[in-house]
Amino acid sequence: MTAFLEDPTVVTTPSDRDTDPAFALHRGGKIEVGLTVPLTSREDLSLAYTPGVARICTAIAQDPDLVYDYTWMSRTVAVVTDGTAVLGLGDIGAKAALPVMEGKAMLFKHFGNIDAVPICLVVTDTDELIETIVRLAPAFGGINLEDISAPRCFEVERRVQERLSIPVFHDDQHGTAIVVLAALRNAATLTGRTLGDLRVVVSGAGAAGIAVSKMILEAGIGDLAVADSKGIVHVDRTDLNDEKRMFADISNKAAFTGSLVDALGGADVFLGLSSGKVAFEAVQSMAPDAFVFSMANPDPEIHPDDARRAGARVVATGRSDFPNQINNVLAFPGVFKGAMEVRATRITEGMKQAAAVALASVVGDDLSEECVIPSVFDARVAPAVAAAVAEAARRDGVARL
Amino acid sequence: MTAFLEDPTVVTTPSDRDTDPAFALHRGGKIEVGLTVPLTSREDLSLAYTPGVARICTAIAQDPDLVYDYTWMSRTVAVVTDGTAVLGLGDIGAKAALPVMEGKAMLFKHFGNIDAVPICLVVTDTDELIETIVRLAPAFGGINLEDISAPRCFEVERRVQERLSIPVFHDDQHGTAIVVLAALRNAATLTGRTLGDLRVVVSGAGAAGIAVSKMILEAGIGDLAVADSKGIVHVDRTDLNDEKRMFADISNKAAFTGSLVDALGGADVFLGLSSGKVAFEAVQSMAPDAFVFSMANPDPEIHPDDARRAGARVVATGRSDFPNQINNVLAFPGVFKGAMEVRATRITEGMKQAAAVALASVVGDDLSEECVIPSVFDARVAPAVAAAVAEAARRDGVARL
Repeated sequence: MTAFLEDPTVVTTPSDRDTDPAFALHRGGKIEVGLTVPLTSREDLSLAYTPGVARICTAIAQDPDLVYDYTWMSRTVAVVTDGTAVLGLGDIGAKAALPVMEGKAMLFKHFGNIDAVPICLVVTDTDELIETIVRLAPAFGGINLEDISAPRCFEVERRVQERLSIPVFHDDQHGTAIVVLAALRNAATLTGRTLGDLRVVVSGAGAAGIAVSKMILEAGIGDLAVADSKGIVHVDRTDLNDEKRMFADISNKAAFTGSLVDALGGADVFLGLSSGKVAFEAVQSMAPDAFVFSMANPDPEIHPDDARRAGARVVATGRSDFPNQINNVLAFPGVFKGAMEVRATRITEGMKQAAAVALASVVGDDLSEECVIPSVFDARVAPAVAAAVAEAARRDGVARL
Repeated sequence: MTAFLEDPTVVTTPSDRDTDPAFALHRGGKIEVGLTVPLTSREDLSLAYTPGVARICTAIAQDPDLVYDYTWMSRTVAVVTDGTAVLGLGDIGAKAALPVMEGKAMLFKHFGNIDAVPICLVVTDTDELIETIVRLAPAFGGINLEDISAPRCFEVERRVQERLSIPVFHDDQHGTAIVVLAALRNAATLTGRTLGDLRVVVSGAGAAGIAVSKMILEAGIGDLAVADSKGIVHVDRTDLNDEKRMFADISNKAAFTGSLVDALGGADVFLGLSSGKVAFEAVQSMAPDAFVFSMANPDPEIHPDDARRAGARVVATGRSDFPNQINNVLAFPGVFKGAMEVRATRITEGMKQAAAVALASVVGDDLSEECVIPSVFDARVAPAVAAAVAEAARRDGVARL
């Protein structure tokens, strides 16, 4: 089984499918639809369906906001993908993305008590994708965008949110960003520094790399340089897309122009959000008390044991078998729970920042090199994040309750 | 409460909502998403989500048919509406249609053990509606179209089915048609006649009226005339849409050209599928042993007691408080269950006809004037319909299992 866990992209054969416990678990699917009210008598039927249901429909037609009160909409999220950037597997298509969306729906329910429905769309044109999501929105109280390729995901999220008055959240961006920021906050506290004291190098300028960079800059990080496959993003590069160009303008005060390794010399933080590798010597060249978040999954940019040996003080990964797991499930259930409880019309920057602060605070007195972020099974996480997000929604004027 | 039940279109006020049990039942919605596998340990998480789920995704990307085995798709139906013809309420929009779609999802689960998801679309252009349904199909094993206005519903069903290799079924058409045909078969048996002996008059040329007419003609009914709001549909009328024109050509051998009342004189069967009324005298003018299926809901075209007094031998309605309830729930759960069990690529005429025969047969020795169709709570119905539909799918060459 270890072999399977270590390389999820391995080609499976029918005989693997007989022995791999993941296939056994997935047989027949992982979620179902259940009834929350009884349906055993003629009277039940006449209230839940015709003729009684017609009165509910009429009431909603007269006052559309009643859809929050008398349907499942207020607690239901569409988990929407087009299958173009599924995990580390790439553009594998709508059908093959479904197991991930079902898994996401499980996490929404288990950790946030949110009912989530997988929606896998066969459409790749950006305009059509946006139109399709807007059209299917009425039955849902939130839209969780998932595994949509960059840079298209930025435009899709922005334009869908402009058209809808329910929360729209691209988890690959903001879920990751919230958890990384929470861990950074705690690591800074642990080492007696503020975010403003830290110079950060981010490897990867995809959905997660860009979103994490934006969010930690917004939170007050000292300086930040982003590297893509061509090296550090800087103002003199002529090969940048709009998102990266925006980044070149607002980041990299130190004006690095070379490679990732050049920028790492003397840096305080490495955030790995790509599938690239980082050499032992590069981590050795970082400042004292460095943080190395090596989040490529399942193969970290540098093995956490090596990162420690190279001098890093706080090491985090995306894996569950090492300390400090950076896992989106620490963020999205609470973010949607809080936003939907107050019927927020969108997710603001303030709500995301509040989520990161709340998530960091759950660690409390347990703070240590091996615990800068709570366990995914810590039951305090989602309520704490939800409460902070709801409060921020009210403060930002986007709450309807 | 009776007042509510008798007039579902009554305008509700906030104080009604406090006293009406339908509102109490609907508060917070009627369905939820549940987990079918545990999610309590790190190992659960690593199998149901990353990294384990990546192996399932990879397998489906390599062999798309595995989506039937390893996701909920094979037992999941999208209940899709655009809110243009909701119950008798008309074009009330996507949001206001949601309570009906949730109710339908309850019926799918309770009666057919099918997981159904409400999808309410904000789109009215026919081409866009079709495109949107095709795009969202990958996560579903069937598409149940619901409450889409005629005549657009005919084109939507046909074109969506042409694009997809999963069952597409407009329940307002075919669910009703299957149940009416089953009841007609039993009523004919009861009165010692065959379908070929019967002359039928159908009131209503909307989705249900057209579909019922087509299906009973296909089953061998003797003659049939359809009336819309302008009178009997016949070849010399110049105001017919395509569906009605096709009907004028294949029906009405008796060549009626006048009103519904004219055609009812001497007719064996009245099928009411509109909101119009039928006079006592019109039913009196029908042939001996007449059947009156007065299915407008909640207000039948003629009250069943009046129909009996006017001489009708078998009387059916759409209501649960009279004998012989013509209710789609007798058909659609079994139809989808049977079709999906054999992974049918579509619903054929043969599958629908088989469903009607199987549904009629459940009545068995209980056959009487007051029992030409089973109770909606008869647990034998869905399995009998499903078995017949699965067998017919194999016979018609559309089964993949």
